[in-house]
This record gives sequence, structure tokens and C-alpha cells, in this order.
Amino acid sequence: MKNDNCIFCKIANGEISSATVYEDGNFRVILDMGPASKGHALLIPKEHFKDLCELDDSVAEKVLPVCRKVGEAMKKSLGCAGFNLVQNNGEEAGQTVFHFHVHIIPRYAGGPKIVSWTPGSETPEALEETAGKIRAAL
Amino acid sequence: MKNDNCIFCKIANGEISSATVYEDGNFRVILDMGPASKGHALLIPKEHFKDLCELDDSVAEKVLPVCRKVGEAMKKSLGCAGFNLVQNNGEEAGQTVFHFHVHIIPRYAGGPKIVSWTPGSETPEALEETAGKIRAAL
Repeated sequence: MKNDNCIFCKIANGEISSATVYEDGNFRVILDMGPASKGHALLIPKEHFKDLCELDDSVAEKVLPVCRKVGEAMKKSLGCAGFNLVQNNGEEAGQTVFHFHVHIIPRYAGGPKIVSWTPGSETPEALEETAGKIRAAL
Repeated sequence: MKNDNCIFCKIANGEISSATVYEDGNFRVILDMGPASKGHALLIPKEHFKDLCELDDSVAEKVLPVCRKVGEAMKKSLGCAGFNLVQNNGEEAGQTVFHFHVHIIPRYAGGPKIVSWTPGSETPEALEETAGKIRAAL
């Protein structure tokens, strides 16, 4: 199902041109026009899903094998030292386009940080209490 | 295959106790002891794979459906506004434990940023040149 107002639907389906890295029946992987680093790519499903919560399992299960393929090709071709996968769900999580996508971000020695946080500290009891709440909602 | 020197092998297989959110034949999802936010979880496969590049497709395809399930349960039970998936490959990408894992990080209104970058700008020609290099290495 496509959404006529969604730019990622148009890009994934080739109605808007993009620097395409990979394409198959389910996905297009393109380069981000405002890259965090050289080669920063976006995996975009051709079908419209708002975020991970909406993604069909039949599509979800094909995402990581494609990300692996692209990440390996980045290491071979761009000389990056590694790469991050980042996938944001919800505006408060930094999602700006509401069509599920995965950022595949090459990381180079000495480059800027992309992902960071200050680790909190929780007692085992507090962790177990939080875990219990999540388990109960599964 | 397990690696006797790997702490995540021991945690995933229950030899070291953890605040477990979810478990099935392939994965254990636990709460991070140094959380970026309340409920920060780690999906860890029971088999040892260094990173995404080493992950078997048979395991890779099961990762996102489990992350979706846990992310949805976080939204229901913790009142977070959204969540990030973060998966780091290689020391330069911030990987600190060399056993594949996915961070599932709840995000709350007004909470600190976890993922950010300064968008670069590239000409369409430069993007196409980079895309061509990656395509040739697929």
C-alpha cells in the first residue's frame, strides 16, 4: 500500500530519483542527501508503514539481511571502520519522515560521534520492576 | 556456537542473571544496567556472532519482529513517546561488547537526545559517485 502524500513512498518506488545503492522487490536503499558521514544510506520499504510498530513481519524479517549486505559493501568500498544502524520511532525519538526507514551510517576513524548517552545507574530491584512492567505488556 | 569468554553469551544463555524482558529459542532481551533511559533494553542472540556482518540470515530475519514486540510493550507499559533501535558494528562505531546486540531505547517527552548528527551536504553527482562505489561492492 502506498501513501500519495509520502515522499519516501515516491522515492522508494522510483517516482523521485535518488542515488540508489540497492533495490529489490521490497526495498530501495538510497544515499541520504544530508549525510552524517560519507555513504550514509537509508533503507526504505516500497510499501508504506509509519514506523516499526506498523511494519508487517513479512517485511520486517527481510530488513537486517539487506542492511548487512549494504554495510559489508560500505566497508569494502568506502574504507569505513564500521557502521551504525539507527531506526527511530516517533517524533520524540527523532523520527522526521513518517515512513519506516533504517539509517545505515558508515563510521570512519576519528569521525564525530553519532550515538551517545550518559549511562544511568539503576539497582537490580529497580531494573527488575521495570522489566516486569514490560513483560506484562508483551 | 557459544564463546566461553563472552559476557553476552553467558547472559543470553542464563549463566549470568539479568532483568529479562523477553526470551525465546534465539534471543534474550534484557535491561541495560547503565540505561540511556528508563527501560533501555538489549536484544542479544543466544548464539555468538561478533556483529551484524557475522550474523546468520536465519537469526537476522528474526531480530526486527522481536524488537517491534518489545518496543510496543514499552509504549504500553512505560508511557514512552517512542523508541530508537541502535545497532553498532565495530569499535569506531561505538561497539563495546563484541557480540551482536540491538539497543531498544525508550524515548520520553523532553528527554535527552540519543542520536544526532550535523547533516552534511553533497552534490547529486558526489552522491551518485559514492552510490556507484557501494553498488560495485555488493
